[in-house]
Amino acid sequence: MINLKRELKPGTVLVPCPAAIISVGDETEANLITLSWVANLCSKPPRMGIGVVPKRHSYGLLKRIGDFVINIPSQNQLEATVLCGTQSGRDVDKFEATGLTPQPSMQITSPMIRECPLNIECRTWKIIEVGSHHLFIGDVVAAHINEEVLNAEGEPDLAKMAIFTYNPLVSQYWAVNEFLRNR
Amino acid sequence: MINLKRELKPGTVLVPCPAAIISVGDETEANLITLSWVANLCSKPPRMGIGVVPKRHSYGLLKRIGDFVINIPSQNQLEATVLCGTQSGRDVDKFEATGLTPQPSMQITSPMIRECPLNIECRTWKIIEVGSHHLFIGDVVAAHINEEVLNAEGEPDLAKMAIFTYNPLVSQYWAVNEFLRNR
Repeated sequence: MINLKRELKPGTVLVPCPAAIISVGDETEANLITLSWVANLCSKPPRMGIGVVPKRHSYGLLKRIGDFVINIPSQNQLEATVLCGTQSGRDVDKFEATGLTPQPSMQITSPMIRECPLNIECRTWKIIEVGSHHLFIGDVVAAHINEEVLNAEGEPDLAKMAIFTYNPLVSQYWAVNEFLRNR
Repeated sequence: MINLKRELKPGTVLVPCPAAIISVGDETEANLITLSWVANLCSKPPRMGIGVVPKRHSYGLLKRIGDFVINIPSQNQLEATVLCGTQSGRDVDKFEATGLTPQPSMQITSPMIRECPLNIECRTWKIIEVGSHHLFIGDVVAAHINEEVLNAEGEPDLAKMAIFTYNPLVSQYWAVNEFLRNR
């Protein structure tokens, strides 16, 4: 018989998930934190959410600054992505440790990451206490893409972006390398 | 100069996103709806969210039933995924149109989809009106995986699951086919 089911422990086993490097801060202090609990939540107005544990160093910064950038890394930034998810900004200057470059945002205080091909500026709209994670819902106020990942028509080219996904079911990073179809 | 930025229209351009088929209903009526605004939101307790537009046929069902299953399709179910995202349950019996098989869930009323390799049973905990989309946050109360996608050690094998991702930035489906590294 096909499709026999085996039970898993109930958990946050969604696959695939984004892996984004969040940048938050101002001229005094800025930090990077890799998050996978990141989502498009609403189309009109465009709103996205990030789930953060209050004990994380970035949590206080997120509350104080009131905005953040969701930076989508390419496979060139995979090691930096792992570092920003496993070390704390209390101990390490993550811009220095990763070699990533802060660049001023257009609409908000937090800087974006120059090397990441896609940068989404968000201004916090609401914080929902879901449990261990608090969901910061932000208005998307600007977005930027690196020119080198555009195709000849000036449209984003996922092959050039070379993005990847985090898969909490198996704690693995996988590439998003093969086009299947248009919607 | 590298990494020159070009501005995009502010929008829900997160990549990659999950593409999940949500099943909701009871013995009287059940429907399938493909959603990409789907996310892990909280680890303890495990909670996940789905963003739904109120005018969608499934919205009323979600409110009435109070639970839903997040089914993760494999590439074998890509066409079914597209169909469930582009047709309405008002016009079409999507189980019949796709050939997908409803199977009773363990903890909730809504059925799961037998063919999808991963099924996550959620009981609605809270509904947040974010804007055009309402965010249904659910407690994960059970999860199931198909035996044929387990490896020799009985662990989930993403290569066997053959999952894919939806990328709203370019409105394209891409495969998740290449292992990069463990966390």
